[in-house]
Amino acid sequence: MPEEKPVIMINFKTYNESYGFRAHDIAEAAETVAEESGIEIVICPGFMDIHPMSNHYRLPVFAQHIDGISPGAHTGHILAEAVRAAGATGTLINHSERRLTLADISAAVDAAKRANLKTVVCTNNTATSGAAAALSPDYVAIEPPELIGSGISVATADPEIIENSVNAVKSVNKDVKVLAGAGISSGSCVKRAVELGSDGVLLASGVVKAEDPAVVLRDLVSKI
Amino acid sequence: MPEEKPVIMINFKTYNESYGFRAHDIAEAAETVAEESGIEIVICPGFMDIHPMSNHYRLPVFAQHIDGISPGAHTGHILAEAVRAAGATGTLINHSERRLTLADISAAVDAAKRANLKTVVCTNNTATSGAAAALSPDYVAIEPPELIGSGISVATADPEIIENSVNAVKSVNKDVKVLAGAGISSGSCVKRAVELGSDGVLLASGVVKAEDPAVVLRDLVSKI
Amino acid sequence: MPEEKPVIMINFKTYNESYGFRAHDIAEAAETVAEESGIEIVICPGFMDIHPMSNHYRLPVFAQHIDGISPGAHTGHILAEAVRAAGATGTLINHSERRLTLADISAAVDAAKRANLKTVVCTNNTATSGAAAALSPDYVAIEPPELIGSGISVATADPEIIENSVNAVKSVNKDVKVLAGAGISSGSCVKRAVELGSDGVLLASGVVKAEDPAVVLRDLVSKI
Amino acid sequence: MPEEKPVIMINFKTYNESYGFRAHDIAEAAETVAEESGIEIVICPGFMDIHPMSNHYRLPVFAQHIDGISPGAHTGHILAEAVRAAGATGTLINHSERRLTLADISAAVDAAKRANLKTVVCTNNTATSGAAAALSPDYVAIEPPELIGSGISVATADPEIIENSVNAVKSVNKDVKVLAGAGISSGSCVKRAVELGSDGVLLASGVVKAEDPAVVLRDLVSKI
Repeated sequence: MPEEKPVIMINFKTYNESYGFRAHDIAEAAETVAEESGIEIVICPGFMDIHPMSNHYRLPVFAQHIDGISPGAHTGHILAEAVRAAGATGTLINHSERRLTLADISAAVDAAKRANLKTVVCTNNTATSGAAAALSPDYVAIEPPELIGSGISVATADPEIIENSVNAVKSVNKDVKVLAGAGISSGSCVKRAVELGSDGVLLASGVVKAEDPAVVLRDLVSKI
Repeated sequence: MPEEKPVIMINFKTYNESYGFRAHDIAEAAETVAEESGIEIVICPGFMDIHPMSNHYRLPVFAQHIDGISPGAHTGHILAEAVRAAGATGTLINHSERRLTLADISAAVDAAKRANLKTVVCTNNTATSGAAAALSPDYVAIEPPELIGSGISVATADPEIIENSVNAVKSVNKDVKVLAGAGISSGSCVKRAVELGSDGVLLASGVVKAEDPAVVLRDLVSKI
Repeated sequence: MPEEKPVIMINFKTYNESYGFRAHDIAEAAETVAEESGIEIVICPGFMDIHPMSNHYRLPVFAQHIDGISPGAHTGHILAEAVRAAGATGTLINHSERRLTLADISAAVDAAKRANLKTVVCTNNTATSGAAAALSPDYVAIEPPELIGSGISVATADPEIIENSVNAVKSVNKDVKVLAGAGISSGSCVKRAVELGSDGVLLASGVVKAEDPAVVLRDLVSKI
Repeated sequence: MPEEKPVIMINFKTYNESYGFRAHDIAEAAETVAEESGIEIVICPGFMDIHPMSNHYRLPVFAQHIDGISPGAHTGHILAEAVRAAGATGTLINHSERRLTLADISAAVDAAKRANLKTVVCTNNTATSGAAAALSPDYVAIEPPELIGSGISVATADPEIIENSVNAVKSVNKDVKVLAGAGISSGSCVKRAVELGSDGVLLASGVVKAEDPAVVLRDLVSKI
C-alpha cells in the first residue's frame, strides 16, 4: 500500500442529478464524508458549476476535460487558465466519453501544468496506460474494458487486470500515480484496488445517481 | 431595415483578456453601453464564466457552444440544460472554431429549444447558410470567407456577399434572423450590415481585445 | 412515380464479405441483375477496391466517402480527383458511420463537382434532409431513425416518415433526388419507397451479407 | 549505426503529382533507385493506388492511414484486412495530417498486427514519441516541431532534438525502430539522422514534387 491515503474522485458527468442546484447535494455529501474520514474526495462537476462549487466547498474541484490550447481564438473550447481562474485545481483528460488525439493529450497535459492544474489522464487498456504514463501526468485512471459496465467488481475480478496496468504505468514512469476507473462500487472495491497498486479510484454514477450519496461515500471510504 | 433594433453579440472566445476577472471589464462596458443606448448587447463568455456573469449582469448571456446531447453519461460535454441552469439564455452553435457535424448541429438546436435557449448557428458560405436555416434556429451568423481576417469591412465590401447569404437563409426559412459575423469593426459596418438585411452582428476581438471596450461598443451602436 | 427508373445503390461497407476477392462475387451478381433488368445498380466498394472494380465491371462505382479537400498535403485523406482517376463516378458523403461537419459536407460536395463525381449526401431526419438539399447534391439519402435497425419495412411504416423527408428536400431544392436509405429489404419495399417519392434506394447488409446476392437483387428490382 | 540498412519511406500524400498515372512516375523512380542501391524504399500512395501499385512494383507498399476497426459496418473507413488484401504490407498511423485518439492509435496498431501489416506511428515531440513506443509499433516516425517547415536540416539542427526522441522511444521499448520524419532533404540529412540513432527516414514533398524523383532518391541513398 502507498504511504499516502488513497483519493476518491467523483466524476459528475452530465446527469440530470449532477448539474446546477442538484450538484450541490452531492458536493455537500462529499464534503461531509471527507471531513469525517480524513480521506481526500475530489469532485469533477460540469464546467458551469466549477465556479460556484469552488467558492462554496473546501473540496478540490477538477474539470472533466480541458483542451490543449493556449489563450487565443478558440471559441467553445476549454482553456486551462480559465479553469484555474474559476477555482479548479486539476482536470480529467481523455475520458472515455471525451477522447483526444495523442498530440492533444500531450498538449492538454502541458497546458494544465502551465496553469498549475493536476492532471488525470484516462486510458482503456494496458498499452494506452503505459503510453499515458510517458506524458508524465499526475495520475493515469484506468478503465479496463473487461470491467466497464460488466457489473464485475475489482474486488472479485482477475487481479492481473489491474496489476498489468499498474505495472505498465510504473515501468514507464514510476512517479505517475494510478487510479482504478471501473469496477468500483463499495469500500471492498476501494480496498482491493489499493491492494493491487492503485493510489485511488475514479467513479461516477454509483455516487452521482445514488439516492443518498453520503451513504455510498461513507461505504467507499470505510476500509481505507 | 427590420422593425426590431439590431442586436450586438460579443463572442469572448478564450483570450487572455476575456476570462475570469478580466471578463468583467468587458461585461461592465457592455452593460453600460446597452443601458445608455437601448440596444441589446449579448455577451458570450467562456463556460466557467456563465454562472458568475449571469448573476452579476442584466445582459443576456449566451454560451459559445453546446453539444447535441441529452442528460446522461457525457463527461466533458456541454449540456444545454446545465447552460440554462447556470443562467444563460442562448448559445452559439457550430462556430468556425468549433465545427460540428450536420447531425450534431441539428441535435444541438433541438437540445437548445428543449432547454429554452436561443440558438445562433454559425456558417461559412451561402450554401451552408441555407442549410442552417433548414434547421430553424433563431439566428444564422454568417462569416463570409471573403471577409474573415481580410481587413475588408462589410461597409465597403461587395454588397452581394451579404445579400446572397441573407437571401439563402430567407428563401429556406423566412423566420430565421441573420447576423453578420465578419467584417464588422465600427458603427458604419453595423449600419451597412443592417441595410443589407442583417438583424444584428456577431463580433469578438474588436471589442474583447480593445484597450477600452466601452469606446468600441459606443461606436458600434452609434448609427442604429 | 418519376419518369426515370429508380436506382439501386449497394454500400459494401467494410464487412468481411465485401472487400478484396469476395467483393467481386457481389459485383458480378449486381452486373448480371443490372443487365437482365435494365435497372441501374451502383456499387460502393471500399477505397482499395475502386480501381480494380472500375476496371472489371460496367457498373457505376461510387466511393463511400470523400474529404472536402483540394490536392495538397492531406495524408490519409480521400481526394475527389484521386477517386475519379481510379474510375469512380460518384460518392457517398456524410454516411451515418462517417459523419462530417456541415462545412466539410459543403466542401466535399464542391470537391466532387470539381472532379465530376455525382454526390449522395446522407441524412438522419427531416430537418437535416432539408439542410442537405440546400447544398445541391445530386441525391439526398435519408435514413429515418424510426426505420434504422428497427426491422420495420418502408412498405409497412407510417408513410409520413418518407413523405416528410421527400417534402423537406423538394421544398428547399426540387432538383435534388431522394434515396430511401433504411427499411429496404425486398422488391415491395423498393416499390413503396418509389411510390412515396423516392428516386431510388441505398442499402447494404441485405445484399452484401446475403448468401446469394443475385437472389436478393433480383427481388429488389422485381416490382419496378 | 544499426546493423540493418536504413529504410527510406516516401509518403505520397494527396498532391496533384502523386495520384493515378502520375504516381507511377514516382514509383518507377523509387523501384529503379532501390534496385540500383540495395536500399529499401517504401512507397505510401493514396488508398485507391494501393492495389495497382502493389501489382506493378516489387517495392513494399504502405497505406497512409488505417482505422482501428474490425470488419463490420464502418462505411468510409479503412479496414486493415482490406489494405492487406489490396497488397500493402504496412501502414502509417497517426500522421500529423490525420491525427487519431490515443485509444484509436492503440486499436489501429492492434488491427494492423492482426492483418499482418507493419506499423509506423507518427509523433510530434519527445513525450508523444515515448507514448507511441508503449504501443509497440514497428516504427515511430518523429516530426520534431522545430524542424517541420523550418527549412532546418537534421544535418545542421541541434542534435539533441533527434537524440531525445530516440532515447524516449528506446527507454520505453528498445525494440521499436525510429524514423526521422522532418528535416530530411538530402543524402547528408539521411546520414546524419542515422548517426543520431534513426533507423530510416520518412519524407514526402521533397521526392513527390521533385521534377525528377530519381535524382532526389539517388542523392538520399548516396551516403548510406
